[in-house]
Amino acid sequence: MANPSPGNSITLRVEAPSSFSATSELAAAVGAAGAAITALDVTESHHETLVVDVTCNTTDDAHAGRVKDALNALEGVTVQHVSDRTFLMHLGGKLEVVPKVPLRNRDDLSRAYTPGVARVCLAIAEDPAAARNLTVKRNTVAVVTDGSAVLGLGNIGPAAALPVMEGKAALFKQFANVDAWPVCLDTQDTEEIIRTVKLLAPVFGGVNLEDIAAPRCFEIEARLREELDIPVFHDDQHGTAIVTLAALVNALRVVGKDIADVKIVVSGVGAAGSAIIQLLKAQGARHIVAAGRSGAIHNGESYNDPHRTWIAENTNQEGFSGSLHDALVGADVFIGVSAPNILGEEHVASMAKDAIVFAMANPTPEVDPAIASRHAAVVATGRSDFPNQINNVLAFPGLFRGLLDVGASDITPEMLVAAAEAIAKRVNDNELNASYIIPSIFDPHVTADVAAAVAAAAHASNVATAADPAKDPEPALASV
Amino acid sequence: MANPSPGNSITLRVEAPSSFSATSELAAAVGAAGAAITALDVTESHHETLVVDVTCNTTDDAHAGRVKDALNALEGVTVQHVSDRTFLMHLGGKLEVVPKVPLRNRDDLSRAYTPGVARVCLAIAEDPAAARNLTVKRNTVAVVTDGSAVLGLGNIGPAAALPVMEGKAALFKQFANVDAWPVCLDTQDTEEIIRTVKLLAPVFGGVNLEDIAAPRCFEIEARLREELDIPVFHDDQHGTAIVTLAALVNALRVVGKDIADVKIVVSGVGAAGSAIIQLLKAQGARHIVAAGRSGAIHNGESYNDPHRTWIAENTNQEGFSGSLHDALVGADVFIGVSAPNILGEEHVASMAKDAIVFAMANPTPEVDPAIASRHAAVVATGRSDFPNQINNVLAFPGLFRGLLDVGASDITPEMLVAAAEAIAKRVNDNELNASYIIPSIFDPHVTADVAAAVAAAAHASNVATAADPAKDPEPALASV
Repeated sequence: MANPSPGNSITLRVEAPSSFSATSELAAAVGAAGAAITALDVTESHHETLVVDVTCNTTDDAHAGRVKDALNALEGVTVQHVSDRTFLMHLGGKLEVVPKVPLRNRDDLSRAYTPGVARVCLAIAEDPAAARNLTVKRNTVAVVTDGSAVLGLGNIGPAAALPVMEGKAALFKQFANVDAWPVCLDTQDTEEIIRTVKLLAPVFGGVNLEDIAAPRCFEIEARLREELDIPVFHDDQHGTAIVTLAALVNALRVVGKDIADVKIVVSGVGAAGSAIIQLLKAQGARHIVAAGRSGAIHNGESYNDPHRTWIAENTNQEGFSGSLHDALVGADVFIGVSAPNILGEEHVASMAKDAIVFAMANPTPEVDPAIASRHAAVVATGRSDFPNQINNVLAFPGLFRGLLDVGASDITPEMLVAAAEAIAKRVNDNELNASYIIPSIFDPHVTADVAAAVAAAAHASNVATAADPAKDPEPALASV
Repeated sequence: MANPSPGNSITLRVEAPSSFSATSELAAAVGAAGAAITALDVTESHHETLVVDVTCNTTDDAHAGRVKDALNALEGVTVQHVSDRTFLMHLGGKLEVVPKVPLRNRDDLSRAYTPGVARVCLAIAEDPAAARNLTVKRNTVAVVTDGSAVLGLGNIGPAAALPVMEGKAALFKQFANVDAWPVCLDTQDTEEIIRTVKLLAPVFGGVNLEDIAAPRCFEIEARLREELDIPVFHDDQHGTAIVTLAALVNALRVVGKDIADVKIVVSGVGAAGSAIIQLLKAQGARHIVAAGRSGAIHNGESYNDPHRTWIAENTNQEGFSGSLHDALVGADVFIGVSAPNILGEEHVASMAKDAIVFAMANPTPEVDPAIASRHAAVVATGRSDFPNQINNVLAFPGLFRGLLDVGASDITPEMLVAAAEAIAKRVNDNELNASYIIPSIFDPHVTADVAAAVAAAAHASNVATAADPAKDPEPALASV
């Protein structure tokens, strides 16, 4: 399933003999080597030679090497330089911190900095709630990691995690105008992470926990939610749960089933799995069986960790105790947040009529989606190269936009459900079909819709603290 | 000495009778109330009335109230609204975090974020030094405070300190293209501050400590310098010391004296005072007497804190033990980083011929600069409304620009001296006079000159770790 990907895009600078067919020969050689050309630019032309920049998607570094070899093997052709477009994009980092105010002259400085800033400081010292109006706290999110569970790469540490956190912060700004800053902590001690985030909180209006290993991530999220007065969100859990629920709501529309009636099998009882189960229950699901590596979680067994215990107590009322494969027989919905290639065609075939399969393990799903679609009515994955990509980018930007807009102090299950429903509603009845259950991440309205739904739910949940900033843009001069 | 200041600029929206002289009457009333008009805009004109926005500098909130009353007292005039231009500038914060890379489509995302970012993460996991090329660490500074000694406001806490730290970050970007982020810590425990900054360090190329109270600031700076591999700088100490030395070098050029010969009295033995003394000694000063509230620091007494002990051992070789006023008799240079109005005219008059007085207490100097200039040859302050403003903005942006450019791991005294000399040299022999010993903070070359001097000194001090990024802009594709 390794296709050439824009994540492995390279540009080869090639010197070739000047001839009518030179560029088409280069293109043919690249194609024959299995790479996909995305651009071809003649950058220099001489009497005898051309210099051509050939840009193509490859599958990995070894493949890039074979493409280079294929071009060098052509008569009179020399590859002068290979540049990796992904690395080029990351050079020097992907974020900058920019002033929003003019600093052209002394007058500007005396307002933005000393002496004028002293009056703003005193206003906050007198009324700490004013910080939300008079500082970046109104619009900031800390993207916090300890580097312990980064993408599928595992425990690579805080420095190596930084490119991901920068990317996340860039997405926050691009999709929702949220000012996010990467916080990569050089510790993996639960108490120290909790304490540090609390010490940093004065600057931030929200906290997005990211790529922190289970079970540590549960404790960190729970404690910070309890001890901070700003919202704390673990995207790997609740972001995934929101988008999964949105996709399931629409998949059930496609097959005409009710969430209260369907039998749902969740594969994976880590961070994402337990958050998905919580949200499915909040939406009314009643028949859920969750399976870990050793089979279905059930009440007849006792578990060491509180999350498996909670799952045992809140799912699988029938006390089913078999394997994942056994659980799947007759099931309406499979939701996988576990491991690659754990299902075969026969397991999907054993599910109920009009089955729904969400195989979200990354980058390789629990079952090949092409095979799954032979038997299931609706198939979704986490990948962009198949239909129905379940991607957190649909949720977290709009969610935090809504949280910051109302100065939310916490996140309730109702707010998560509201976000999921707003995403689901972006697909209208005319658009909805088995290959289109979830909007594109570039849908220009999804962020605003999610933000509005979350803001309304925050007011309904009594966790909104701020007046609508649009209604009171200018603080009055207190003493005048 | 309270003059109307742009830091206290207000805009009054005024309804006035429509007449030929209406605007001039408004202007006259504002002037008579002691405020300085900076703009007057007629925003609406009707048959009988005008609406006018009057913008003026005031001295403080009470004065703004008197200006409003003076306008309301005019026949037929009503002040509809008063807005505070300083508060308006701070609304919603003064910084934003902006992506440097395009995120227009799936291909962009697959390079900036998953799946492409995984290869960048792995490159850093294999070679941690690559973080400086492939992440924001190349260009970031943490502006760290605990809110314990903010401006002249004292211990107002981390939330109320944030407007200052945002302003500092804005100056970093504006003057030196450094990406600085405010870190306002909700603790004033020395060990906890040290530990927290260490935990945050993976994201930053340098640390600027700001507005942390003495003596805590000394321990924090010393420990972080020792325990981190990025440069740590306490601006209130060393930034002030750099600009003070720059000003002194030029003041001595004006009066034709040698730093090795002059008698220097330093008033104030807190954070700034001791850093100034260290730097004066590094530059060759030999006759320094430092005075705190209880008089001159001298070797005949024993002090509880290590900084006073160091000062006693390294200054005042004659063992002088009198008061500040006594010390000043016959002195060539007074450097005040202490308290307002502690010197009278007679004390300046008692100094040597061609005396130099730097009265840097903010906002009110140790001696009225107009009075001091009756007897001293050169007078400087920290204020922008007198000649010779000694302002840290001349030093910290260029200093960190230089540190980041060479990937400095530490800051040596030679680098501080190099920064001071670069600032001093921005005033050439034709420009130099008693009222112009220090360049303007808007001198377009000062940042680059300081950066180049610091970078060269870092190489000479063997604390530069990074190759010049301009020389190797594209990392090669390792396996090709």
